[in-house]
Amino acid sequence: MKIAVDAMGGDHAPASVVGGVVESLREKDPQQAITRIEKYFLVGKPEAIEDEFRKLDCTDGRIEIVPATETVAMDESPTHAVRKKKNSSMSRAIDLVKQGQADAVLSAGNTGALMVGSHLKLRTLEGVDRPGLAALLPSPKNVFVLLDVGGNLEPHTSNLVQYAVMGSIYSRNILAYPRPRVGLVSIGTEDIKGNDKTLETFRLLKQVNINFIGNIDCHELFTDKADVVVTDAFVGNAILKSCESTARTLFFWLKEEIVRSPRAKLGGMLAKPALRAIHKRLDADEYGGAMFLGLNGVCVKAHGASSPKAIRNALRVAAESVGHKMNQQIIAEIREANEKIKSATTQEPALQTAH
Amino acid sequence: MKIAVDAMGGDHAPASVVGGVVESLREKDPQQAITRIEKYFLVGKPEAIEDEFRKLDCTDGRIEIVPATETVAMDESPTHAVRKKKNSSMSRAIDLVKQGQADAVLSAGNTGALMVGSHLKLRTLEGVDRPGLAALLPSPKNVFVLLDVGGNLEPHTSNLVQYAVMGSIYSRNILAYPRPRVGLVSIGTEDIKGNDKTLETFRLLKQVNINFIGNIDCHELFTDKADVVVTDAFVGNAILKSCESTARTLFFWLKEEIVRSPRAKLGGMLAKPALRAIHKRLDADEYGGAMFLGLNGVCVKAHGASSPKAIRNALRVAAESVGHKMNQQIIAEIREANEKIKSATTQEPALQTAH
Repeated sequence: MKIAVDAMGGDHAPASVVGGVVESLREKDPQQAITRIEKYFLVGKPEAIEDEFRKLDCTDGRIEIVPATETVAMDESPTHAVRKKKNSSMSRAIDLVKQGQADAVLSAGNTGALMVGSHLKLRTLEGVDRPGLAALLPSPKNVFVLLDVGGNLEPHTSNLVQYAVMGSIYSRNILAYPRPRVGLVSIGTEDIKGNDKTLETFRLLKQVNINFIGNIDCHELFTDKADVVVTDAFVGNAILKSCESTARTLFFWLKEEIVRSPRAKLGGMLAKPALRAIHKRLDADEYGGAMFLGLNGVCVKAHGASSPKAIRNALRVAAESVGHKMNQQIIAEIREANEKIKSATTQEPALQTAH
Repeated sequence: MKIAVDAMGGDHAPASVVGGVVESLREKDPQQAITRIEKYFLVGKPEAIEDEFRKLDCTDGRIEIVPATETVAMDESPTHAVRKKKNSSMSRAIDLVKQGQADAVLSAGNTGALMVGSHLKLRTLEGVDRPGLAALLPSPKNVFVLLDVGGNLEPHTSNLVQYAVMGSIYSRNILAYPRPRVGLVSIGTEDIKGNDKTLETFRLLKQVNINFIGNIDCHELFTDKADVVVTDAFVGNAILKSCESTARTLFFWLKEEIVRSPRAKLGGMLAKPALRAIHKRLDADEYGGAMFLGLNGVCVKAHGASSPKAIRNALRVAAESVGHKMNQQIIAEIREANEKIKSATTQEPALQTAH
């Protein structure tokens, strides 16, 4: 397969991006046939990209550099980026998928621009109304999918149901959970808890063919209750950022307290491998980035601060999505779900009044 | 002042509740005149309550036991509790405020029942449309107010503005921040980021007399950017629970990793005071529970697992709210805010069409 890579996207581009591509090309694990890489298109400023490959002493026939003169800044307005920078590395990388030259695109750049750009250019899969952005989060016993963490701030209930179906397929394909448990974020776990939108979504989720386990209260996020956690992008963003923010703050406090006394300092030194192990378990780099689900093409967003390892893992997620033909599964299961949604939302014909 | 205490509410009632009352009565700090306690009404099963006072060897003329035969269970439906258990300890404790016998009520019991019951019985303050539940969260540099974490799942924009005003007053009175910085939860920090409701709320918040600093993205929660963080109860609940859940999970992992090797175990032992210090900084017991703002009466919710210390701190919050006449400040500032909201939402009169 062929993957288009936005070489200029991310805080440490192009070094990290090229580094990740090189790690992927040098991977020693025997690649499965279905995820074998034929080509990496590296899109961006040729000299800068070549420079990085040179530093890493990498020449590989599977690399092709595609020139693009512009770069989307991390804090640029997505609409500005999409409208005004037709020749950005991100835009050109998406174009390669649109034109059928590549099977997937990866960027560590501006999330909003990638979302707007890929939606505009690739459009959605047959039957999918809105694409959703799915993140992977670690819990003590599993890794779970949280979606939507992307741009759909005011989804219809049918969008949320489609996210549940797509998140379930994603979990099956990328995490190999045979029958992922799907939960709906609400305010409490009882069936009757929620706002108008979640209550209606709950009713619809009962109808479609997924392993729906009911409402999830956020205190259960990390208790291995659900493998797929569904909500709208506003709440999804709040959850994701709150978790990250809490973890960062706790580590900050830990450091602060540990340097306060020689005894604690020594303790911290001895416990360092343990702390490092936790860091590794939390490390977003392990989880391969976020995936736009529902697009007519595979589009993976690695986080902005991606290391080469993060890029390599995100490339693996892209390759597996293509290799497992995930989008074909989405089309089939969304078609089935849409029928269920339709019949569940169609009013029963009113009884004829007897004369 | 007089405070009504639901002696039977909470996971460890009545022991913890009575324990907290005793700690409060024995407090050695010279009490400020405005928060001096004249009476604690302990509402519930007299024998059980007396038993606890006896265990703690406490006899004090400021204690009055008010019998109530029923108890609201922690997982009981709020409407059931309110409608069917007229003689519950919670219901009778609220009644004491309603009848003017007590200035404030405290319960560690069922949050929903306390919310529904206190709203029904006490009603809202003049000008306040809906009460909101305000939680206190610790950050490395300050303690901030997050609201609404209570029951208003589908607030109007004007409700959110009222929460901002009340949260600001709460922060001034209980945390002594002279001019609390108020932020609005959104998806990104730029002014233009948000959904329809937050964008309209943003516009209104600019009009009222608070120190509004704009949108808060949840990655900034603990960065000392805002002293009051405003959102609806659905998102507020998701944020609060996500933070708690992440902290709990990290401590779980830390323990798991530390017992894995003798070296890490020794490190953990040496670092124990540091870890305990962090626990203390995170300890919900320090922060005195959550406050229902906007009720015609002071109503404090201590968390279900409250220790005696948590109850004592929650009693202090109740006493300070009464002592500082917080509700009078709310009435005055909500009146002013409502005028601003009204003029900002009133359509400009349409220009007369020239004939």
